[in-house]
Amino acid sequence: MYDKTIETLKKEDMNLADEIYIFDTTLRDGEQTPGVALTVDEKIQIALKLDQLGVDKIEVGFPAASKGELQASKEIRALDLNSTVVGLARSVKDDIDAVLDADLEYIHTFIGTSPLHRDYKLKMSKETIISTAVEAVEYAKDHGLTVEFSAEDATRTERDFLFDFYNEVVSAGADFIDVPDTVGILTPILTRELMTDIKENFKIPVSVHFHNDFGLATANTLTAIECGANQAHVTVNGMGERTGNTSLEEIVVALYSAYGIKLNIDTSQLYSLSDFVGRLTGVKMPVNKPIVGDNAFAHESGIHVHGILNNSSTYEPISPELVGHSRKIVLGKHTGANALKSKLKDYHIELNDEQFEKVFNQIKALGDRGKCVTDDDLKAIALTELSSARETPIKLKGLGLLCGAIVSPTATVKLEIDGVEKETSNTGVGPVDAALNAIRDLIQDTMDIELEEYNLEAINGGTDALADVFVISSDNEGNKSTGRAINEDIVMASILAVLDSINKLLLIKRTQEI
Amino acid sequence: MYDKTIETLKKEDMNLADEIYIFDTTLRDGEQTPGVALTVDEKIQIALKLDQLGVDKIEVGFPAASKGELQASKEIRALDLNSTVVGLARSVKDDIDAVLDADLEYIHTFIGTSPLHRDYKLKMSKETIISTAVEAVEYAKDHGLTVEFSAEDATRTERDFLFDFYNEVVSAGADFIDVPDTVGILTPILTRELMTDIKENFKIPVSVHFHNDFGLATANTLTAIECGANQAHVTVNGMGERTGNTSLEEIVVALYSAYGIKLNIDTSQLYSLSDFVGRLTGVKMPVNKPIVGDNAFAHESGIHVHGILNNSSTYEPISPELVGHSRKIVLGKHTGANALKSKLKDYHIELNDEQFEKVFNQIKALGDRGKCVTDDDLKAIALTELSSARETPIKLKGLGLLCGAIVSPTATVKLEIDGVEKETSNTGVGPVDAALNAIRDLIQDTMDIELEEYNLEAINGGTDALADVFVISSDNEGNKSTGRAINEDIVMASILAVLDSINKLLLIKRTQEI
Repeated sequence: MYDKTIETLKKEDMNLADEIYIFDTTLRDGEQTPGVALTVDEKIQIALKLDQLGVDKIEVGFPAASKGELQASKEIRALDLNSTVVGLARSVKDDIDAVLDADLEYIHTFIGTSPLHRDYKLKMSKETIISTAVEAVEYAKDHGLTVEFSAEDATRTERDFLFDFYNEVVSAGADFIDVPDTVGILTPILTRELMTDIKENFKIPVSVHFHNDFGLATANTLTAIECGANQAHVTVNGMGERTGNTSLEEIVVALYSAYGIKLNIDTSQLYSLSDFVGRLTGVKMPVNKPIVGDNAFAHESGIHVHGILNNSSTYEPISPELVGHSRKIVLGKHTGANALKSKLKDYHIELNDEQFEKVFNQIKALGDRGKCVTDDDLKAIALTELSSARETPIKLKGLGLLCGAIVSPTATVKLEIDGVEKETSNTGVGPVDAALNAIRDLIQDTMDIELEEYNLEAINGGTDALADVFVISSDNEGNKSTGRAINEDIVMASILAVLDSINKLLLIKRTQEI
Repeated sequence: MYDKTIETLKKEDMNLADEIYIFDTTLRDGEQTPGVALTVDEKIQIALKLDQLGVDKIEVGFPAASKGELQASKEIRALDLNSTVVGLARSVKDDIDAVLDADLEYIHTFIGTSPLHRDYKLKMSKETIISTAVEAVEYAKDHGLTVEFSAEDATRTERDFLFDFYNEVVSAGADFIDVPDTVGILTPILTRELMTDIKENFKIPVSVHFHNDFGLATANTLTAIECGANQAHVTVNGMGERTGNTSLEEIVVALYSAYGIKLNIDTSQLYSLSDFVGRLTGVKMPVNKPIVGDNAFAHESGIHVHGILNNSSTYEPISPELVGHSRKIVLGKHTGANALKSKLKDYHIELNDEQFEKVFNQIKALGDRGKCVTDDDLKAIALTELSSARETPIKLKGLGLLCGAIVSPTATVKLEIDGVEKETSNTGVGPVDAALNAIRDLIQDTMDIELEEYNLEAINGGTDALADVFVISSDNEGNKSTGRAINEDIVMASILAVLDSINKLLLIKRTQEI
């Protein structure tokens, strides 16, 4: 908690609205992220999760843009969500008709107002822009829609004209006015000046729609809310054109943690929603994304872990549980001997001094190579060291692969399992699959394994660059183990990584049996 | 440009310092990113680039932490950079000695001051904390160092104690006081209150060191500068623990673009520095990172490209050249027929209506699958469609691969080149490399090809999941072409992708010859 809380500052400096609405536009602005396209079914899945999270409004798309957009709007509307379903429309009759056609009750309509948009994009006079907007509002209101009106590029529009414009659309019946910072040029101080001026001049609810070009979208949105904004446009993970829009998760958590404003959002769903949208759109969150990134609650052992273990607040602003995330202690270059000993104790692995020294050096060496070492890796490294049979139980003694265009890829694998050589062949959809099938046959008396995950790290360079393969295997008793191998040959790297994970699983299994 | 500029607001609301210093801590705080470790040589490379960029100070590390850290500090100091080289130290004699040992002239020393740090981490009384800090400052000053003192977790420290503390270290001779927001709990409004209070009470230069847990580090740093802060701690790409520190590039560009403050930074190097650090640390920037992300100046055709083409300012806050980045127009789901026609015209590719329809549908289909379509892809797709010989000139007619543990992986490839079958075999470090070598032999009479890039997209799932291989090949006349193939078999996908790119290169070559 900050020494001076926002609570103590609130009376003098803030003008918070009684209610603040979250207007999610992941399905519209978010989908405008270059290269992202969502199917109707994917839009429905995201809308269901947003509704479950508790956002007030969901902008589902631009019904006039395509049949798919119209279809998605219709189907989401038909779900009868708690969230209000919004459709986007330019200020033209056909676009508004498409919103009506989708049976939506709330329209977000817009027109550019800045000199740049008037002169270069729309090629319209100020008067035409106002009359076009007014006609759109009147038409939409006549058809029973709730109308939110955006003056596109509002923050680069002359203040006088912007206010004239908003006055006219308000007189025509608009229910919300929205202020888009179309190219993300606002800063908090500029936002304060603008929003204060707007709130002094307009009595109807004001919404803000900010972009993140300077990395300030969250701060600007919070500042607008401090000055009385009634609604924030946001997207999951801050998706959107260029560098994106205001992040849903950042706004919700900052309002809750710094301002004590709870909203109607179930914050514990934020992490899983973010992860879900990242996977569906292929725009994965960076590890250091606030609130939801992989590192948001990760601490490298040896830096601050001592403090964290005593009281997690020493190096965390909020608890990961608040957003459904989890804490992660990773080992690396900075890891000290004490931290490692405490970890090993957690796993009930006792090493003598010589063994400990070797494990410690391996962890340090991995850290020095810039690798993140997980608890599973540590467990496997320590168990390998601990094993009295220091040799790996399973060794690759021979491999033959035959691939081509006529018969299925075929692998012959010879393994030494606990000193006994065995050989068999099998086929698969590719050489790796064939080899894995053969390995599975060979070890079936020892254990049943399942490949849970197979990752081949992107190889940049020629076909003779190194392939880095990472796998996770599991046995039928629920044990899991990672395996990793690096080789010039993709196929060989894959097989060695699988064998690495199987050897670790076998060690874990045998330790359990002792 | 915003209608009300910061210039017009400056007099009433701001208290800008005459000079603002950029203190880069990529090599120290940035290296504390979980899983990141830099070698001495890598630290030197980054320091050279930071110096070239023009940052005022470079914190190179924590000399007392390890031999490697000491070595890096010494070597960077010996480079005799324009930037001041800073070493971190706890408030203990050994740590300060290490900074002296590295021959540094500027020390950044710290101690925790908040109740959480006093009680759970340091287990020291307020008095002991002050006396420890004072002794450290006196010792450092006695040895001729410039001293910057950080009250760790300052933003969660009782204001009275924080000021008492700063007063004592200032009296002891500190040259800079630094205000770390250790867990990133500040908001702009809280920053304003805190920094105003500090500047009213302290006459020596004040530095800020902010974390990004709520996504507010940039905004808070700018707000602190508005209130008179003399220095900002930053890292390249906002690297650092958890969600990282204030981003160098965001601060520099916001100060330049929104505040008209130029600093000593050559902004045109920002993109290449960011890219360099991303590659070296393995922490790649997300596509939507402000200023330096891949999408920062990317526009999906069909959304705003019409506006961008008329005047790029309509949908860009700054020009990409300012930061050494470049504009990218990508095709996708939203691409309209007009945009596509204009692109084809740029490349002097004329298609009849039927051909155009086919190309348009292919682009749309790729977009609907969520794929980003580059100009090169469009060119290749259009040229393939245009080619009167609609059949691909080179066809794979047969393939045999032999891999194993004793001889080198061997490939026999049979191709049909312009209707003539040819076959040869060759070896390589893996099956793909072997096949590529054989293909190169077979087509050498037709063209010399070089594989410029080979990317295998991370495959998540079993070994029978689809492999998506993307390559870029070039010929000896400087033409480049992408190739892409998806197959269950990694090896087959690789070979088909290479052949795809070769076929496109051949079409480009033949079009040029017409």
